[in-house]
Amino acid sequence: MTRTVYVNGDYLPEDQATVSVFDRGFLMADGVYEVVSVLDGKLLDFAGHLARLQRSLEALAIANPLSDEDYLQAHRELVRLNAITDGLVYLQVTRGNPGDRDFAYPPEDTRPTVVMFTQSKPGLADQPAAKTGWKIASVEDLRWGRRDIKTVQLLYPSMAKMEAKARGCDDAWLVEDGKVTEGSSNNAYIVKDGVIVTRELSHDILHGITRAAILRLAREAQMKIEERGFTIAEAQAADEAFVTSASAFVMPVVQIDGAALGDGTPGPVARRLREIYLEESRRTAI
Amino acid sequence: MTRTVYVNGDYLPEDQATVSVFDRGFLMADGVYEVVSVLDGKLLDFAGHLARLQRSLEALAIANPLSDEDYLQAHRELVRLNAITDGLVYLQVTRGNPGDRDFAYPPEDTRPTVVMFTQSKPGLADQPAAKTGWKIASVEDLRWGRRDIKTVQLLYPSMAKMEAKARGCDDAWLVEDGKVTEGSSNNAYIVKDGVIVTRELSHDILHGITRAAILRLAREAQMKIEERGFTIAEAQAADEAFVTSASAFVMPVVQIDGAALGDGTPGPVARRLREIYLEESRRTAI
Repeated sequence: MTRTVYVNGDYLPEDQATVSVFDRGFLMADGVYEVVSVLDGKLLDFAGHLARLQRSLEALAIANPLSDEDYLQAHRELVRLNAITDGLVYLQVTRGNPGDRDFAYPPEDTRPTVVMFTQSKPGLADQPAAKTGWKIASVEDLRWGRRDIKTVQLLYPSMAKMEAKARGCDDAWLVEDGKVTEGSSNNAYIVKDGVIVTRELSHDILHGITRAAILRLAREAQMKIEERGFTIAEAQAADEAFVTSASAFVMPVVQIDGAALGDGTPGPVARRLREIYLEESRRTAI
Repeated sequence: MTRTVYVNGDYLPEDQATVSVFDRGFLMADGVYEVVSVLDGKLLDFAGHLARLQRSLEALAIANPLSDEDYLQAHRELVRLNAITDGLVYLQVTRGNPGDRDFAYPPEDTRPTVVMFTQSKPGLADQPAAKTGWKIASVEDLRWGRRDIKTVQLLYPSMAKMEAKARGCDDAWLVEDGKVTEGSSNNAYIVKDGVIVTRELSHDILHGITRAAILRLAREAQMKIEERGFTIAEAQAADEAFVTSASAFVMPVVQIDGAALGDGTPGPVARRLREIYLEESRRTAI
């Protein structure tokens, strides 16, 4: 089956889904994105992702071209057309195609570009990796200073992931001024003596939609949380660790720079939070 | 006349020049670029730009898909088809279209995407601004840590230029740890007591092709050069200042954060270097 892709209101076969070479997303990484997971054909935490999209667009002074209802309708249509049971919907909005290249922003009536596509991932909530956990490699964080805006400037996270793979790991944790900021495409957590530690919100990290949900659910479950930075050494000495993201949900971490955490298997807090999160997400999916 | 654009070997009308939405240049800013100026229909410093393209591609482990001769032929063909007398040729190479989105690099046989287009700029070497000079606004440098790789991650330089415009200036100088790194799309220089000061090469700045030429020409003209960082305060107290880039050549700076330099008009060193550079560039253009 050929995948159907959404481009500026049109539903197109994937090999015809194109944008102009003058699109500012292509020439200048002038765009933002969101990824929404799909389980049993329903969208997870959709309102949260749309709210963050709005914040990202406002931070870049891009007018949101569609209503929340338009986005929802298009997401559902793509899920239907592509028969997605488990998987995700990727959404990207750029400052559009001004017809030429210029560092200055184009006139305000330039229509932003909206692209959406699905990825089918059968068994997304039952990834085998969730049973065994991820190995993490630490990599220097060389990204720009506004990681709270979810832009498509993903070259460095991509480089960091390749570096991690080259070192036999599943993902990278990025380190700046001695402290972990976050994973290459997820938020990072450690657990020590029953306390969950994760970096506080700032311009330094993405304000994860899944992070917000996990912290809320953890508080509801009476777990203790400290929002602060931590070092790789502190993480290696932790009882357990995990990452969260829209598509990995809660993924246990069992090794950091070669040091096994606890007994080297997924820890109870990560396992429990994953269970609670998936249950809650399925219950509230739309 | 409709502009003709080069996309992966095809010469297309600009409104048909597209790339896949799955191109890593669009989804992840995973690409690099060069801009070559054209004067009297000839290419300036072409070999220098191709050498830097090669370095940028190697830094990202992207195989260069074309030979130098192919690039030259395509540049000349675009100049001819678009009847460019003065202007520029923009060249972008991305890691290509793997057919889907993934942080991991695609298989090595994925063909990089090559896009080239022209911009006609009659009188490029006689910009009125060169007679009056630019006003500069300082802006915090929030870019990523590998500015020596000429990637398309240009969102922040674009934002900085808009910030400068909002403050009534022509361009931004980016400041990190108290020192100027460079302009939003050019290298920055000050002149004090006959000494030209510009930041030394490192990962912090672009290794400007025009910068290299200017420093060579300045040395040949027995001018003194110091390659080191400088503060905005030092720049405001300088006798003169200027920036260099492939398309602005040598552009005098007459004001920084509201403080006029010297008598507030372009200084003799900038004027002389611009003259020498344009003379040499025209002489060696191909």
